[in-house]
Amino acid sequence: MSDLNAVLAHVDADLDAALARLFVVLRIKSISTDPAYAAECQACADWHVEDLRGIGFDASARATPGHPIVVAHDRSAKGASALFYGHYDVQPVDPLELWDADPFDPRIETLADGTRILRGRGTADDKGQLMAFVEACRAWKAVTGRLPIPMTILLEGEEESGGVNLPPFLKSHADELRADIGLICDTNMWDAKTPAIVTMLRGLCGEEIIIHAADRDLHSGFYGSAAANPNRILARIISDLHDADGRVTLAGFYDGVPELPEALRTQWDSLGFDAKAFLGAVGLSVPAGETGRSVLEMVWSRPTCEINGMGGGYQGAGFKTVIPAMASAKISFRLVFDQDPHKIRAAFRAFVRARVPADCRVEFLEHGSGQAIGFPIDAPAFGKARDALTAEWGKPAVFIGGGGSIPVTHELKKALGMDVVLAGFGLDDDRIHSPNEKYNLESFHRGIRSWVRILDALGRDATP
Amino acid sequence: MSDLNAVLAHVDADLDAALARLFVVLRIKSISTDPAYAAECQACADWHVEDLRGIGFDASARATPGHPIVVAHDRSAKGASALFYGHYDVQPVDPLELWDADPFDPRIETLADGTRILRGRGTADDKGQLMAFVEACRAWKAVTGRLPIPMTILLEGEEESGGVNLPPFLKSHADELRADIGLICDTNMWDAKTPAIVTMLRGLCGEEIIIHAADRDLHSGFYGSAAANPNRILARIISDLHDADGRVTLAGFYDGVPELPEALRTQWDSLGFDAKAFLGAVGLSVPAGETGRSVLEMVWSRPTCEINGMGGGYQGAGFKTVIPAMASAKISFRLVFDQDPHKIRAAFRAFVRARVPADCRVEFLEHGSGQAIGFPIDAPAFGKARDALTAEWGKPAVFIGGGGSIPVTHELKKALGMDVVLAGFGLDDDRIHSPNEKYNLESFHRGIRSWVRILDALGRDATP
Repeated sequence: MSDLNAVLAHVDADLDAALARLFVVLRIKSISTDPAYAAECQACADWHVEDLRGIGFDASARATPGHPIVVAHDRSAKGASALFYGHYDVQPVDPLELWDADPFDPRIETLADGTRILRGRGTADDKGQLMAFVEACRAWKAVTGRLPIPMTILLEGEEESGGVNLPPFLKSHADELRADIGLICDTNMWDAKTPAIVTMLRGLCGEEIIIHAADRDLHSGFYGSAAANPNRILARIISDLHDADGRVTLAGFYDGVPELPEALRTQWDSLGFDAKAFLGAVGLSVPAGETGRSVLEMVWSRPTCEINGMGGGYQGAGFKTVIPAMASAKISFRLVFDQDPHKIRAAFRAFVRARVPADCRVEFLEHGSGQAIGFPIDAPAFGKARDALTAEWGKPAVFIGGGGSIPVTHELKKALGMDVVLAGFGLDDDRIHSPNEKYNLESFHRGIRSWVRILDALGRDATP
Repeated sequence: MSDLNAVLAHVDADLDAALARLFVVLRIKSISTDPAYAAECQACADWHVEDLRGIGFDASARATPGHPIVVAHDRSAKGASALFYGHYDVQPVDPLELWDADPFDPRIETLADGTRILRGRGTADDKGQLMAFVEACRAWKAVTGRLPIPMTILLEGEEESGGVNLPPFLKSHADELRADIGLICDTNMWDAKTPAIVTMLRGLCGEEIIIHAADRDLHSGFYGSAAANPNRILARIISDLHDADGRVTLAGFYDGVPELPEALRTQWDSLGFDAKAFLGAVGLSVPAGETGRSVLEMVWSRPTCEINGMGGGYQGAGFKTVIPAMASAKISFRLVFDQDPHKIRAAFRAFVRARVPADCRVEFLEHGSGQAIGFPIDAPAFGKARDALTAEWGKPAVFIGGGGSIPVTHELKKALGMDVVLAGFGLDDDRIHSPNEKYNLESFHRGIRSWVRILDALGRDATP
């Protein structure tokens, strides 16, 4: 039996013990955003340190101004190295009454269709995903006494609460952390049968605008039409942001946005993405984006402008004939390819200012800014990871775009110059950040096996 | 000395006693909207009944499903009769901490410029105004033993809490209450030196719309641009409601809106209305309404469309990349002349429906509906009241439009077929509905004298 097959067999045999370990971590209430759980966050970091030491890693919890960062090295192997990133903190559990069971009392359930799942906060985001990787390392060490490649594991404790302490940590520990490739587990499969590697992530430019008109709320019966109404000004700004074809009207917005490379378009077309089912699942049916673009393009590779929130005046029950003193909106742009978030912010602000009357005032608040990122899918690590996933799942792994942002990806690229293979085993229905979060048992089990194979592949020469 | 002069002299001599009576009423916490004060509302009604009986009225408190309505008759005089309307209830006093003193411990204060004012909840809205009328009646009776005209006084206890019980009461007591002219005191002077009669009140059509898109809030990173965003749909609807010239775009909106009669325009022009000061007082300077219309036209005689409230998505601190499931707005139209609120509501709903995508849904909630009202300023009662006011204040009284709505005016017209002289002595800075409400001592004193003169004038033949 090859080393690989022996390690995979060990994973299968050890699954119950792996689940028991995962459940220990899931029971720790490491809610990073709530100071009441600071001790639990520390306890979770300490648990990982002990666990990783048990496998043979040189592990420690590093203090930050917030929750600790766990760093663990195993440099017994030679060759190209990897840095794995995961996070041990979880989202709050409110509203608690919407959970069918205690979110911190994890359990295995069998759904009506026979699918076995792990239920509880953190099962999918991110404890189940990160422990799948740790279990893969444990299996390699148990069977062969070594890892296929030099490995560093980095576990953050503030991913769900802003993560402000990670970028400076990466910068100040760049020499210790830099590796040949990054591995991130915080992503989803294409569907329950098809593994995926996310190779494109959109950037973000978030803005809040506050339109100030009169210096107080006015009675619309007395001042109606004569006094500027910030709701109306704001509505016009928002309405003007898209043209009749659904394109964003900011000057230069599409600079740096090429058409999709033909190879990628062909691969995406072959995915058989069901736009009707995608929209139908949330009660919609009419694609709302740019005329002539497929839904998959809209959500993966086209830049967007969304009004995430807006409000002004009286919003309670009943009616109040008020002209409010101010109105505000939170607007986010998802960016692709070479769009420059700073240029887009400037264009947006000029666009808004041009629509604010002379006696009104606009205030801008910046909410995040990041360029899109795309990895070279022809680099060896991506091909190896894809082949490993394909071997495990029996179905070709796909390179996909990602709609959301995973900020650490950008940080790894920026601070350490590393490309990152984003390969996770979550599913769209995992209810992350929501009540009754779950992770499929198959995602965990085959996730471990997938990482066993990826580590094996990364340890081999590109051309054997 | 004429009867009139004798009565005016009595008013001057009796002012301290009149203030003492007013302060008794002001101390009663007749907050109609709060059930905790039901007994105080009853006590206030009872006080008025006793007071009016003391003057010689046949007075009683009539039970309603809510707070009682006080009705008092004095039919000793002959000739054309009048129905006076006032309300004995007051607004709540929250936030209490913004009051400089106990709102129910009325006091006389002298402002920095020497103006003497009455401070406390209800001083202007409406106890001070209604007691000015009652004191005028008291003076007539004290000096001459009679009133100049047959008189009915109607005091409502729910004006500040919806007033739902008044219309059916007017209808069921129409024969008892009907008179030749209505008198309402619930209005303001043009300024502190210039008395005014409001002869035009705008109508209202209030609508709330709720745009429903996806069946849940969506992550804008995953669904951005592909999924309909109700904020964007709502913003477009609101933006489309006005054209570039500030005109409302609803089909048929300006049907029944004539140009201002030349006589009224001339009189309004002569008012010397300072649009710059009007807007400047609230921190604005650019009239926001229809191109080519004066600010006075905008607020008095032109129909308007205002967005009183709107909201959708995340409006808290920070940022949340959500596409909300719904967004909503509260929109009011102020109507003039013969605009039909029902036609306008129908036109608005058609306008909205035409802008809601096929996979979204709009819900409409109706919030009030009333036609504009205008009184014939050439009818004798209006001329008499104007002359009486001019004589008292030494400055020509003006006929003005009213921006707000005084629903009882419509009810008197509808249920009893009566025209109404709206003559009050409030001022724009009285802070009604707000902390530190006040009423000028001069408004009270000369208000009594004004009503003495108006009653006298109404009792004389039109052509002596």
